[in-house]
Amino acid sequence: MKIREITVTPVAFRDPPLLNAAGVHEPWALRTIVEVVTDEGLTGLGETYGDLAHLEKVREAADALIGFDVYAQNRLHARVSAVVGDAVSDLHGLTGVATKEKSIDRVYSPFEVACLDIQGKAIGRPVSDLLGGAVRDAVPYSAYLFYKWSGHPGAPDDRFGPALDPEGIVAQARLLIAEYGFRSIKLKGGVLPPDEEADAIFALRDAFPDLPLRLDPNAVWSVETSIRIARALDGTLEYLEDPTAGIPGMAAVAAEAPMPLATNMCVVTYDHLPPAIAQGAIGVLLSDHHYWGGLARSVQLARLCETFGIALSMHSNSHLGISLAAMTHLAAAVPNVAAACDTHTPWQDGQDVIAPGALRFSGGAVAVPTAPGLGIELDRDALAVMHEQYLKCGLTARDDTGYIRRFDPSFPTTRPRW
Amino acid sequence: MKIREITVTPVAFRDPPLLNAAGVHEPWALRTIVEVVTDEGLTGLGETYGDLAHLEKVREAADALIGFDVYAQNRLHARVSAVVGDAVSDLHGLTGVATKEKSIDRVYSPFEVACLDIQGKAIGRPVSDLLGGAVRDAVPYSAYLFYKWSGHPGAPDDRFGPALDPEGIVAQARLLIAEYGFRSIKLKGGVLPPDEEADAIFALRDAFPDLPLRLDPNAVWSVETSIRIARALDGTLEYLEDPTAGIPGMAAVAAEAPMPLATNMCVVTYDHLPPAIAQGAIGVLLSDHHYWGGLARSVQLARLCETFGIALSMHSNSHLGISLAAMTHLAAAVPNVAAACDTHTPWQDGQDVIAPGALRFSGGAVAVPTAPGLGIELDRDALAVMHEQYLKCGLTARDDTGYIRRFDPSFPTTRPRW
Repeated sequence: MKIREITVTPVAFRDPPLLNAAGVHEPWALRTIVEVVTDEGLTGLGETYGDLAHLEKVREAADALIGFDVYAQNRLHARVSAVVGDAVSDLHGLTGVATKEKSIDRVYSPFEVACLDIQGKAIGRPVSDLLGGAVRDAVPYSAYLFYKWSGHPGAPDDRFGPALDPEGIVAQARLLIAEYGFRSIKLKGGVLPPDEEADAIFALRDAFPDLPLRLDPNAVWSVETSIRIARALDGTLEYLEDPTAGIPGMAAVAAEAPMPLATNMCVVTYDHLPPAIAQGAIGVLLSDHHYWGGLARSVQLARLCETFGIALSMHSNSHLGISLAAMTHLAAAVPNVAAACDTHTPWQDGQDVIAPGALRFSGGAVAVPTAPGLGIELDRDALAVMHEQYLKCGLTARDDTGYIRRFDPSFPTTRPRW
Repeated sequence: MKIREITVTPVAFRDPPLLNAAGVHEPWALRTIVEVVTDEGLTGLGETYGDLAHLEKVREAADALIGFDVYAQNRLHARVSAVVGDAVSDLHGLTGVATKEKSIDRVYSPFEVACLDIQGKAIGRPVSDLLGGAVRDAVPYSAYLFYKWSGHPGAPDDRFGPALDPEGIVAQARLLIAEYGFRSIKLKGGVLPPDEEADAIFALRDAFPDLPLRLDPNAVWSVETSIRIARALDGTLEYLEDPTAGIPGMAAVAAEAPMPLATNMCVVTYDHLPPAIAQGAIGVLLSDHHYWGGLARSVQLARLCETFGIALSMHSNSHLGISLAAMTHLAAAVPNVAAACDTHTPWQDGQDVIAPGALRFSGGAVAVPTAPGLGIELDRDALAVMHEQYLKCGLTARDDTGYIRRFDPSFPTTRPRW
């Protein structure tokens, strides 16, 4: 079952002006779709970031993997490692520091997912079965709230409306919950002064007294601010995500904060785990198969977390249905995923490269596909449209900071900001 | 692909009088053979310990697993966990302390291996492919030397001859290396006063200047003795295995020993890893899929060890060909297995429950089977003979101490012995 052909297609889809610590989402989000075809004609799908430096490495890796067996994952990873070499490519900084190991795992990931898709199709089994078997029939996701503008500057307002204060955030939560049925809520913070974000959490707590809440300021707070706000939020949060930067800073906050700290920024590759564990920096790891080396390695990561008493949830960047399928299979097969996973799906607002119907939200959860492989099919017309959008949109890398500075030239990137 | 039937067969095979810290091997070694049959008629093989308390739990688990899908490993493990409950069963003490988690993983293991055998057969792939794919074509094993009597008391001498001094140990090494081609050597110690065992290592170093050497006193030395002997052996050992008992003791020795310490006694389940890592107790983990929960979980363990800079090798108890096949697939698919694995194969001296030819030693290594599944077949005639031997031998549990005390009533079990 050897790889005969790999097609790598960058795509772009419309993205609302979602605010975060780095700036604001541009009008187009970029992704890369990977199609792997075997000598028997089986195809598998993978999805990864669209940033150009990464895309180029994915293309190089694709060329280098022709002829590999889809089961030879160790050898395939080694080949990707050789291709990536010492080329440490960073993305946008919102998923923590770049390292060589992380760069390799990130390039490897879409190929691994595609190979598992193929393996599953070959044997008539869902990918979750290749990861130890599903322990849940549906994977719960959280309502991922963002401060946002009413629309991109110069463009009409989008249907989600503005959210720049507690009332706007609560209204956004009501909208997403009405449409998806989410049963937990995450607020992307790091946008407004910390006390205003704490007020939004209090407003959410009042509006949704039974739903777990989280806040993620993307590491733009100082240790002191983090501790102060964490104490102020005592009793309201399931976890506080990346209040401050770095393992020592997180450890200092963790020692004083009344709730667990979660991260997808200070622990983003295996090398970070020993110091984070030794320092007691985190209580929850937000894993992400896009940079933790694919699905099978994420299962290994889950075992490591279980061993050290670290709870697991899942991080998300803007993504399409291939990633949502992969995340759902993975979370279904990892018993110790303890909290609803993050997803940007609502913000993609129906745009997708996969044929509709395979992944449906019910009660905030996605039923684990039981069809062979990932259980999804590429919509080639949609892919063509999104690739055209990629070619025309003029973006080749995500740059939230550059975009916000077109409207607010003094937007600060000093850290900590507060 | 559901489990229709499971057959659990205890077997016994002749074992030479191999000495260790607990006493001496009895004339019969016990194992349990597990055959899993699916509704489609595919069969898979597993092998585990033969001790009665464990055998009873394996039988209970076998009854409880009928109807399970062979891919539903998470659910299968949970079911075994429910069957084992709080029944912490110990074996002979030479594989460290018993814990509830270890007892569950030990009962689960043969079923997992059998299910992987079935999965591999179903798709025409070797088990190594289900573990990430082989990164080596053959797995090196070490010559596993034992102090031994010339034969069991009252029985004729066996063909291996006596080994009670450095000359006997060197002669035994020459015999095993001549027959199997081993390229590294492990001496089971804890039998003679430590300085005499050190002398055996020096004799092996002189006789085989290029081969890596290891010594395993099974934790019967004090911390002080361990440090003294470790220093005396500076420059001779690849690693020193379990010189003393417990994680704190091992950590105290590790701080002073010039070579890495290995263990299959102080770290035998996931719960032991955090304190062992925090205290710097070990440099090498001797994994063993028989009590680390099977092959897929051993791959997870390998990733954890790699993350924390712990080297990997593999432990062995007396075993037959099903275990050797499983160990070979696993070691082939784990890139960071850094040292030759242990095996008792030479002491089984041709006795087996599998059809001959599938597993051959060449240059001390076993070629990784490329046939589907484990790549072995049950020899039903041999199984019947060995089961008869089990019924007739009168043993139901390994008891090296009870056996040696029949000839040496004062054999001490105080620890540390030296």
